[in-house]
Amino acid sequence: MPVIRNASFVATCPDDSVQANVGLVEHGTVVWEGDSILWVGPEASLPSEYHSLEQIDVRGAGVIPGLIDCHTHLAFGGWREGEFEQRILGVSYLEIAQRGGGILSTVEKTRIASEESLLALCRDRLREMNQLGVTTVECKSGYGLDRETELKILRVYKKAQQLEPTNIISTYLGAHTVPQEFRHDRKSYIQLVLELAEQIASETLASFCDIFIEESAFTVIEAREILTHALQQGLQVKVHSDQLSNLGGTQMAAELGALSADHLEQISQQGIDALKRSGTVAVSLPLASLYTFQPPLDARKLIQCEVPVAVATDFNPGSAPSSHLPLALLLACTLNRMTPAEALKGATIYAARALGIASERGSIEPGKKADICVLTTPNVEHWLYNFGEARCQLTIVNGSVAFSRM
Amino acid sequence: MPVIRNASFVATCPDDSVQANVGLVEHGTVVWEGDSILWVGPEASLPSEYHSLEQIDVRGAGVIPGLIDCHTHLAFGGWREGEFEQRILGVSYLEIAQRGGGILSTVEKTRIASEESLLALCRDRLREMNQLGVTTVECKSGYGLDRETELKILRVYKKAQQLEPTNIISTYLGAHTVPQEFRHDRKSYIQLVLELAEQIASETLASFCDIFIEESAFTVIEAREILTHALQQGLQVKVHSDQLSNLGGTQMAAELGALSADHLEQISQQGIDALKRSGTVAVSLPLASLYTFQPPLDARKLIQCEVPVAVATDFNPGSAPSSHLPLALLLACTLNRMTPAEALKGATIYAARALGIASERGSIEPGKKADICVLTTPNVEHWLYNFGEARCQLTIVNGSVAFSRM
Repeated sequence: MPVIRNASFVATCPDDSVQANVGLVEHGTVVWEGDSILWVGPEASLPSEYHSLEQIDVRGAGVIPGLIDCHTHLAFGGWREGEFEQRILGVSYLEIAQRGGGILSTVEKTRIASEESLLALCRDRLREMNQLGVTTVECKSGYGLDRETELKILRVYKKAQQLEPTNIISTYLGAHTVPQEFRHDRKSYIQLVLELAEQIASETLASFCDIFIEESAFTVIEAREILTHALQQGLQVKVHSDQLSNLGGTQMAAELGALSADHLEQISQQGIDALKRSGTVAVSLPLASLYTFQPPLDARKLIQCEVPVAVATDFNPGSAPSSHLPLALLLACTLNRMTPAEALKGATIYAARALGIASERGSIEPGKKADICVLTTPNVEHWLYNFGEARCQLTIVNGSVAFSRM
Repeated sequence: MPVIRNASFVATCPDDSVQANVGLVEHGTVVWEGDSILWVGPEASLPSEYHSLEQIDVRGAGVIPGLIDCHTHLAFGGWREGEFEQRILGVSYLEIAQRGGGILSTVEKTRIASEESLLALCRDRLREMNQLGVTTVECKSGYGLDRETELKILRVYKKAQQLEPTNIISTYLGAHTVPQEFRHDRKSYIQLVLELAEQIASETLASFCDIFIEESAFTVIEAREILTHALQQGLQVKVHSDQLSNLGGTQMAAELGALSADHLEQISQQGIDALKRSGTVAVSLPLASLYTFQPPLDARKLIQCEVPVAVATDFNPGSAPSSHLPLALLLACTLNRMTPAEALKGATIYAARALGIASERGSIEPGKKADICVLTTPNVEHWLYNFGEARCQLTIVNGSVAFSRM
């Protein structure tokens, strides 16, 4: 039964409707047993039966819930740094695609990658995220776009879950884009997506079905068909919507009870109202705005309308090639205009809501899983304001140490 | 005599006029003796007399010159994370100043800080920068604004130089803003700035004199008087210009032969032409754009006009509270539209030019000081594209290890 001593604060991040309320406990402490939190409160009030426990002296550091990255495309073959340079120099995405770049080039490299090599890549990436305090990662398929590779990616996530401490939530994103070989036969590809959703649900290879609603990807009508089918198979749903154009995908997602709608740079007031009514979490992905030079989401507007806003990396080799969730949180502050407290809540309990796991993770409360991050910072504001390396001192997942520099 | 083995590349960053030319040597190696570089080239061509030297196996990592942060306000008391939150919520800088915030609140805290405490802060900050591969840091005064504190800050830099491995270049920035006590008597404050410049030059407490040209700070006429006087005392000059408004400060700086003009978000074509004629380096400070929500500098325009562009952090507790130079370089790519190669050159040889030290630092060439950074990355583009923690494996300053995680 470990107990944290000498923390400057614990931000418990309670599951309430106030985005800025991080549930601050000054000089707080946390006690856990096995994988579950037993007690949290001011160290001065620590019940005497916990005084003699295994003590972790964090020497003035702060304590937050383990960070949750609720939107990543973790498994992919190859990188696309050459495209980054081309885009900086003004080459359009269309031209890059015509030169053989873009999503489909990643699809090619992911199809030829062995399951072992993808697993090794994912494990390295998850460990790099542990070093930043990340304890739960949502992982999407979608760089396979054929039966074999989509299943391969989801199996990789299942194995990674067995081998790594990080909690993994898998999402089937067969509807990422239409692959080359179905370019002239969208209907058959959608048929394949429907069939695969069925297989994936029956083999419990994913918890979610996601779709990219965009002019270059899928229409709202196609999305409704795919997501409705996925719901019937027992998968929960989420969407990529309103990123480059507003097609009404957010409203459709809210109507279907999606747990999250992600991107939303072009969201309308109707979209905001729909999210509010349904309780769907808005997921901001500011690294994608930064790396693609697109106008960022105005998160203040959503927060003022009482829509919960989560923040995630969108980690992928094209539009967001960094898995650095604290950087995404700094950008949530500077580009999306969220306060540090709001951003923290966006990467903890609201991210847990976006993944349907808020009853067991995302906050530091008795009964919840002991997913904890210890940060060298005097307060939550300072952590994101004074952005730096090596801020995370200790990462605990399910009660055990996943990373430590203490 | 150490020699680097098994590097995937060495980017030598030669002192030429092509911003994108990082002087790439695939599978390169570097040999140095004492504090000086002896040899650089492909490992396959390493002369036999160097084969038996002390070998540093970097196992596929890349090698770049030690990074140079050519614009920081390193010594300050207190932080201002509360203002960060207020600005996110839309409170104006003027309101923050009226509530007792802004530069003058840092001046207050810096005046009451002891020389020992400021020295300890600076040493911690310099070591944090060593971990990112930074080997040279320009350090400004300017949070004293009285004789005693300005001298105290510059003495702190002199002591830090004796105690820490980092190369420090000190700059006198008495003309940062007009302090409270001279609010109704600018002339007397300028007189004090002139006197102090004389004393600082005679005691060799700084190499540069800098000034903040802005509506809220100093006019071009005042700046010309101060900088001309500083030049006469033997100080070199640089300016903060065109940040929030275009007052013609950049042209004046170029005319006086300033080594750099910094910020430049609002630079005009006349300003660009003036920099080109004088060979003055333009210093981009994209962290300040990010943290203050201001439109960033269009660096492409300057590079196309053959003006060398350096990149620095502007580290300070108000507008750029991060000392993370690689983050500034990522932002140089995404906000200023510089390619990773251009950004690297901006934080090495062009930053050295901005500090007048390009003949001895900023590139990996025989005869130069052995300031070297070893990075875990397959190439320069990937380093900034896949932004992450712990990319720097080894930092060498003047031939000795300043930081290592190898």
